Amino acid sequence: MHVPSKTVQFDRRLVMHRGGFLETPTVAYETWGVLNEQRDNAVIIFTGLSPSAHAASSPENPSAGWWEDMIGSGLPLDTDRFFVICINSLGSCYGSTGPASIDPATGKLYRLTFPTLSLEDVAEAGFEVARQLGIEKMHTTIGCSMGGMSALALCVKHPELGGRLLSISSATRALPFSIAIRSLQREVIVKDPKWLGGNYDLADPPVVGQRLARKLGMMTYRSPREWEQRFGRERISLEMHSDEKFFGDFAVESYLESHANRFTGQFDANCYLYLSHASDLFDFAEHGGSLKAGFSRLALESAMVIGVETDLLFPIRQQRELAEGLSARVPDVELVELDCIKGHDSFLVEMDTFRPVISRYFESD
Amino acid sequence: MHVPSKTVQFDRRLVMHRGGFLETPTVAYETWGVLNEQRDNAVIIFTGLSPSAHAASSPENPSAGWWEDMIGSGLPLDTDRFFVICINSLGSCYGSTGPASIDPATGKLYRLTFPTLSLEDVAEAGFEVARQLGIEKMHTTIGCSMGGMSALALCVKHPELGGRLLSISSATRALPFSIAIRSLQREVIVKDPKWLGGNYDLADPPVVGQRLARKLGMMTYRSPREWEQRFGRERISLEMHSDEKFFGDFAVESYLESHANRFTGQFDANCYLYLSHASDLFDFAEHGGSLKAGFSRLALESAMVIGVETDLLFPIRQQRELAEGLSARVPDVELVELDCIKGHDSFLVEMDTFRPVISRYFESD
Repeated sequence: MHVPSKTVQFDRRLVMHRGGFLETPTVAYETWGVLNEQRDNAVIIFTGLSPSAHAASSPENPSAGWWEDMIGSGLPLDTDRFFVICINSLGSCYGSTGPASIDPATGKLYRLTFPTLSLEDVAEAGFEVARQLGIEKMHTTIGCSMGGMSALALCVKHPELGGRLLSISSATRALPFSIAIRSLQREVIVKDPKWLGGNYDLADPPVVGQRLARKLGMMTYRSPREWEQRFGRERISLEMHSDEKFFGDFAVESYLESHANRFTGQFDANCYLYLSHASDLFDFAEHGGSLKAGFSRLALESAMVIGVETDLLFPIRQQRELAEGLSARVPDVELVELDCIKGHDSFLVEMDTFRPVISRYFESD
Repeated sequence: MHVPSKTVQFDRRLVMHRGGFLETPTVAYETWGVLNEQRDNAVIIFTGLSPSAHAASSPENPSAGWWEDMIGSGLPLDTDRFFVICINSLGSCYGSTGPASIDPATGKLYRLTFPTLSLEDVAEAGFEVARQLGIEKMHTTIGCSMGGMSALALCVKHPELGGRLLSISSATRALPFSIAIRSLQREVIVKDPKWLGGNYDLADPPVVGQRLARKLGMMTYRSPREWEQRFGRERISLEMHSDEKFFGDFAVESYLESHANRFTGQFDANCYLYLSHASDLFDFAEHGGSLKAGFSRLALESAMVIGVETDLLFPIRQQRELAEGLSARVPDVELVELDCIKGHDSFLVEMDTFRPVISRYFESD
């Protein structure tokens, strides 16, 4: 059963970063721990493209979250110390206003009438949650993957929040290889005849295109080396053997198939297109005209940049560039290069490697 | 104007490596230079998945070939010394019998009634060309990309040919990342509604799927680093700007689009599916039960293995493994690791780097 997250609603029109607006949009979020009296223990998390705000279980929703082993009493994001907030990105379909929401002006779904989404808008939605919760200073802003770009957007747009930045497997902007992959993911969706220019039947969405996009995503979320160790040229069992002539010989194909099936149906196709496009469009250099100018606008106490050697989507050299750029302005910047084999997704699955690093950052406070 | 290659026809039924047969199939090839009296100066080239036998211009067909700068008088494959033969792979659509050919038994196109294609069959087709040209000993067998696997198949199936092996950006078998990419390329084609179970209208083939497959291929034929240098986050000019909402912001998208458009319509979709699948299925270890056993069957004088650091499809570690495996049996094996930035396709585009290396191998004769 899907348990809805908490929500806040803007008390005003949100003018979007690249034009257009949303009337009093809703932002879904979840929280763990308690905001202290000084209101200085808030940690805000911006997610990757697809997760909901349900980062960890809670009394309201005891099902495991996507960062279950990271958030809780005695865990790196220690709920005995911190008030942890996770934001469902604006434009997503897990409670925040997005293309799959009803446009109050028309009573119909936004679909492609939703204005161009930018990660600056996602950041602004997170800011509104903090504001309505009475938070004026942030202890730490965390962003994973796309969320790292949303986190940078929050820090540059609202330097008055101060605090610390924890960027995980992210970057100041996407490289052309990542843009190409995401563009191709979008293209397989819009080329699905059931997409219908975005006006698909909700009971019969473009799942073929969505499944292909998910498989393509998996190619870049993990790493060739992991698959080599994990699958090699293992053949799949007869029961899983596809009867299609050109497929289903190898375990890796079965793995992609099951991942694609698990994801599809959970995520709205148009929301995916908007968030994917926003990931490509984001460029931290827009804030001031250059990366350097962007960094000079920050007012952070410290930062940690974590990257993974095998990441294809946000390669390790981007982590180095981000840490170097931050260093020009932020007093205390640490770059952590992890040699996890699981590529971009390591922060979701290599918990034993990530927990001690993140613990250390919060203990160094 | 398309100028047909030369052809030979099997004088017997070809029993396929994985079952089934072809009655007296045709094999297209082209040649440059002259076979000497000793008939010991033949160099045979097996191509990657998509090229025709037209590797270089000739009096019969003066248009530039896909390895124009490599074959000719005074060039690395020196036609003053060598009789160079390039084979159009069995299963392809450039003159050799394939799924797009007419099945003499039915008078109709084979389409999916074509038997499962293996690179051993491609090798056997090359062997038949050599046999009919009166060649009993090979000077050098060359294979690029998929063709390197066909070359290995020839060498292991016909050790009596002897000679030398030049393997370029290939491997003993595909890794799961490469299998996954190719499986996904095939899937976007068969999911195109116009594919029609392989029975597409020849005047209206599944070009949407083929274009997507080509774009996906390009992701692995080049390298992220090349694109970073070449495109960065360059925006495309207004004239090239797509009017689709989620695309066409970046130069890299325009590049992929133009590559996809150039390729599509040239290659038959079913032929592509068969050759792609054959690339996944090939496993040199089938020859004797292990890689080691396969290598022990070779009777080569020497070998050169060339690989490229930025190759995503046949990574450099596979080149090292191939060279090491060959070394157990072949007297003189040289591994050449090139730091070209253009990834897997470097052998087609980084001529100034490849020419001296290949010249050296032929001069060392």
